[in-house]
Amino acid sequence: METLTVMGQRAKTAAAQLAKTGITERNNALKAAADALLAKRDTIQAANAKDIEAAKKNQMKPAMIDRLTLTDARIEGMAEGLYQIVQLDDPIGEITSMKQRPNGLMIGKKKVPLGVIAIIYESRPNVTADAFGLTLKSGNAVILRGGSDAIHSNTAIVSVITESLKECGINPDAIQLVTDTDRALVTELMHMNKYIDVIIPRGGAGLIQNVVQNSTVPVIETGTGNCHIYVDEYADFKMAEDIIFNAKTQRIGVCNACESLVVHSKIAGEFIPQLVDRLKLKNVEIRGDERAMAADSRIVPATEDDWGTEYLDYIISLKVVDSIDEAIAHINRYNTGHSEAIITKDYDHAQQFLNEIDAAAVYVNASTRFTDGFEFGFGAEIGISTQKIHARGPMGLDALTTSKYVIYGNGQVRK
Amino acid sequence: METLTVMGQRAKTAAAQLAKTGITERNNALKAAADALLAKRDTIQAANAKDIEAAKKNQMKPAMIDRLTLTDARIEGMAEGLYQIVQLDDPIGEITSMKQRPNGLMIGKKKVPLGVIAIIYESRPNVTADAFGLTLKSGNAVILRGGSDAIHSNTAIVSVITESLKECGINPDAIQLVTDTDRALVTELMHMNKYIDVIIPRGGAGLIQNVVQNSTVPVIETGTGNCHIYVDEYADFKMAEDIIFNAKTQRIGVCNACESLVVHSKIAGEFIPQLVDRLKLKNVEIRGDERAMAADSRIVPATEDDWGTEYLDYIISLKVVDSIDEAIAHINRYNTGHSEAIITKDYDHAQQFLNEIDAAAVYVNASTRFTDGFEFGFGAEIGISTQKIHARGPMGLDALTTSKYVIYGNGQVRK
Repeated sequence: METLTVMGQRAKTAAAQLAKTGITERNNALKAAADALLAKRDTIQAANAKDIEAAKKNQMKPAMIDRLTLTDARIEGMAEGLYQIVQLDDPIGEITSMKQRPNGLMIGKKKVPLGVIAIIYESRPNVTADAFGLTLKSGNAVILRGGSDAIHSNTAIVSVITESLKECGINPDAIQLVTDTDRALVTELMHMNKYIDVIIPRGGAGLIQNVVQNSTVPVIETGTGNCHIYVDEYADFKMAEDIIFNAKTQRIGVCNACESLVVHSKIAGEFIPQLVDRLKLKNVEIRGDERAMAADSRIVPATEDDWGTEYLDYIISLKVVDSIDEAIAHINRYNTGHSEAIITKDYDHAQQFLNEIDAAAVYVNASTRFTDGFEFGFGAEIGISTQKIHARGPMGLDALTTSKYVIYGNGQVRK
Repeated sequence: METLTVMGQRAKTAAAQLAKTGITERNNALKAAADALLAKRDTIQAANAKDIEAAKKNQMKPAMIDRLTLTDARIEGMAEGLYQIVQLDDPIGEITSMKQRPNGLMIGKKKVPLGVIAIIYESRPNVTADAFGLTLKSGNAVILRGGSDAIHSNTAIVSVITESLKECGINPDAIQLVTDTDRALVTELMHMNKYIDVIIPRGGAGLIQNVVQNSTVPVIETGTGNCHIYVDEYADFKMAEDIIFNAKTQRIGVCNACESLVVHSKIAGEFIPQLVDRLKLKNVEIRGDERAMAADSRIVPATEDDWGTEYLDYIISLKVVDSIDEAIAHINRYNTGHSEAIITKDYDHAQQFLNEIDAAAVYVNASTRFTDGFEFGFGAEIGISTQKIHARGPMGLDALTTSKYVIYGNGQVRK
């Protein structure tokens, strides 16, 4: 493999060239890449088989092996994802807020690509095609560092894409994969400020925290969600039960799943048993404080650690509070800035919750599971930012752009 | 001094309270603080005298002592700055792009404060009042760490402001100063991800690089500007000469001053001597490549280091190129992503330069000295971002905000 520095230089060159391309050129390249993924599915699946074999040898859990496997449907899904990205508007080139200053200077703000984006991710090889689609559409070059479990699959996917880029006359360095799985290279990547404009980690909490703690390149933190639902004293019980059941059990391993409940004490005695009945249909373990346990004997005790835990499992914590203020304080203390919901029929409580909860997405009377670029109507998603700078919440193509001030003068000098 | 952790906790509490304030309350607090700075100028100047005495003892250069000195005019300037911030629109609370999704969810994007901002800066104590004004207006709490040279002045200014906040019923922890000048505390501050949402360094390249290299808290990089002016073969010579003279000499110690020239070879012989005549009026030293030296014997040789140097002095580098492509490549290689200008009468060259130069601000036929929040019409400036994420170029109040998605539902669950 080439050194990372060489990869960085190549990426920077490719980014400068991509910044000059038009949307038709980029869309054609995306279509060609999608076609190539379909045409060369045998090659990709042969490489994927090697990863699966190694995974079995390493006694990987069946659920993980399933995530790793590139079935026909998943390869078609990767191609379909690229075709969908083609349909989206060009995120690049628009000049907004062009205004004339008193001295005659015309100053406008133009949307431009970020430049070089590095994405560090785990297991699922379809992220490789997704990441390529979003970065190329937005005129960026990407350096990918996937998990070692998927190295053969990722190498094959990137090779198919680069071949198709060459045929379209696009610099194939627009997408580069770090094929050496040595972890030291991740550290090196995180310090390549000269060549990389932003790093986006995608994966578990360990991976994300490693990048946040060690990268000198600007990071967009994605992911972990300790999402709460607060059932207000003025909630519709049936709605609360339906939303909680959905947010906890519709898909358990995702960052927008609900991990913790907060229930008003006035309704605890009546609502909690009804809720537990429902959650027990999916064998959800409920860990509660003393008042929660007093309301239903099937609830087991929660420890302090439970309030801050993202289970990603059929487990949920439950705290009883005496007011909406206490609920908001609890949520703002333990949440991860992802998605929080209130279930209420009270107008003032709904507004107070929306105003005072500090998170990327705050809901009234809806499931936290909607925090997602597709559900928000962005047409694509590169991840969900849980930090406050640059992008917050689901990130679509817009999050992969920056701006440049363009200034038209006719000889102005500063007084 | 309290521990930084306690300061962080207090700042977070203050930020949560500020997020609930209305603009009238925040504007009244800003006016009260400005009034207090004027009313207590004697106290501030007495503290400032201690800093000046210490500076003289430490043989600080007269120019630096001048920057440190809080004359009547400068204190009035600080107050005036706060009154001006009062006049600006509230950057907080607007909900944009509220749209209904097919499932009936109403999803809008609301502007909210970032939360807790840390600002690490050097010498000039008036930055203390500026930083307070911008962060309070945008509903943020701020933790300030100024230079040790100005510690007495900064302590006095912050004390005057916190007293006035108390009188307005605002939590005085909205502004806190790290009074212990131990450098280890800067390192600690840079790792307080739990309490600080963003760090903005303001000062020299050393300070900024220390923060960029070591902070785990997200950073907005500001500052260093190796700004170029390219004199195209189709330039108006008089305009080029005026703009370069302005950009180099109008104020030398600032990040938007011009540090490097690029001149087309076709006009080098005629234009360079005329330019050198003008720059020599201010005794500017010109360091050039061989062709530049051939054009004028007053030009001294440049080394490779010169192309990347921000002089902040009466020195400028000069390179001769054979095409606009070569000029753009040179500038994109050595610039710091700040401000770059082309002087030309050619339409295509102007557009090409605007499109292909990778910098926060790109000018046609104007001085780079205009890159500034006030000149851009933002009414205020917290610094000039030279990174690509979150904010790029001059940062006004808007750069101190983030967004929160607010979602109104009526029982939606995800299918």
